[in-house]
Amino acid sequence: MVNGETAVVLFSGGLDSTTVLAIALAKGFRVQALSFRYGQRHSVELDVAARVARRMGVERHAVADIDLTIYGGSALTADIDVPKDRDGDAMTDGIPVTYVPARNTIFLAHALALAETSGARNIFIGVNALDYSGYPDCRPAFIKAFQRLANLATKEGVEAAAQGADALFQIQAPLMEMTKAEIIQQGMALGVDYGMTWSCYDPHPGTGDTTNAPVHCGRCDSCQLRKKGFAEAGVADPTTYAV
Amino acid sequence: MVNGETAVVLFSGGLDSTTVLAIALAKGFRVQALSFRYGQRHSVELDVAARVARRMGVERHAVADIDLTIYGGSALTADIDVPKDRDGDAMTDGIPVTYVPARNTIFLAHALALAETSGARNIFIGVNALDYSGYPDCRPAFIKAFQRLANLATKEGVEAAAQGADALFQIQAPLMEMTKAEIIQQGMALGVDYGMTWSCYDPHPGTGDTTNAPVHCGRCDSCQLRKKGFAEAGVADPTTYAV
Repeated sequence: MVNGETAVVLFSGGLDSTTVLAIALAKGFRVQALSFRYGQRHSVELDVAARVARRMGVERHAVADIDLTIYGGSALTADIDVPKDRDGDAMTDGIPVTYVPARNTIFLAHALALAETSGARNIFIGVNALDYSGYPDCRPAFIKAFQRLANLATKEGVEAAAQGADALFQIQAPLMEMTKAEIIQQGMALGVDYGMTWSCYDPHPGTGDTTNAPVHCGRCDSCQLRKKGFAEAGVADPTTYAV
Repeated sequence: MVNGETAVVLFSGGLDSTTVLAIALAKGFRVQALSFRYGQRHSVELDVAARVARRMGVERHAVADIDLTIYGGSALTADIDVPKDRDGDAMTDGIPVTYVPARNTIFLAHALALAETSGARNIFIGVNALDYSGYPDCRPAFIKAFQRLANLATKEGVEAAAQGADALFQIQAPLMEMTKAEIIQQGMALGVDYGMTWSCYDPHPGTGDTTNAPVHCGRCDSCQLRKKGFAEAGVADPTTYAV
């Protein structure tokens, strides 16, 4: 499966994107992992991302500074409470306040710039239409529309099309149709150490252990989906939760 | 023509986007002007943009910090010389090194976030397919593809589509088919003071006048198109060029 081609992987250090990174590496891609410092309150994920990327053997881990706080409008960047203890119905009913305006559009646009300059033709993103059906920019139609745009937006995409090629740039969303349990099973099969990953939207202060590292709150939507995923996958959950 | 709706205008303080701003204001939009600090060597344009936006009466001028230097690959952000003294054929032959990878995709993605949170349905962008035919992300097909994406990417776009509406978010590119001379004539008719605007990719140090402000180099592609535009429009060029 070694292909030696370069791929860009949008990478937050979370459960989903770490699984995507493992998939891209297993396919033999040389990976440019791309994370964002976008004003997220859970910026601990950037330290996690750096550690996980290094451990898994990416070619480069780039962190782009993009200030999304000036747009406001999301509990992840603005002064809005992160919802806690919601049940599954509440989570999937409508679009949650943790939706960051146009976030995946922005992330993919930046990934396209990195792809264009690093020679990558494939961009991997860990979106999932099942567990997070409330996010519009996590659906197949969105991914397809972005791929179309990418091949109209770029020097190389346009040149390839002029020579009759179709879709030089490919947006890969391998988790699209998977449940959280299936994602975890796939990652375990690829040797992912999920104990290193970070999912929580609202990090809890460290509990005074030797590292004093922040822990998962255990109550936000993301923590609840993580817990449920491990339970349904029948895999021991390596995460330290405050609750 | 007063419509009172909010619009986002991508705004660099240059000749084109200042004309677009005048067009949006003349249509009665309340304008959220959006500029970017993206590592451009000609960051003097941000000071210009702030002055022009204030003078013309926008509702808000937002400046987003987005680091595009980590992608490299362009004479506008990386250590590559800005081409000088090229003739018209050289300028339109292929894609110039001043092309910034995925720049308009990135700019429109950020504009979409601002539109979503400010209640704007229209996003104005000063792209032009005639004078800059070498840039792939300045063509009608690109703009159309982005509009399609915008309405799949956003909470409100998706909700409107679910209720049968078509393209809630509109990307307006009023300069698309205009020559530089026509753009200038349009702006003059709307009262634009082009002496305030900035086009140069490679600002020349101030010439020791009372303000010591930087001046246009007069030799980069953008300066040459600016000079030519005023000449062809039959309008006195208010710009101070080093050459």
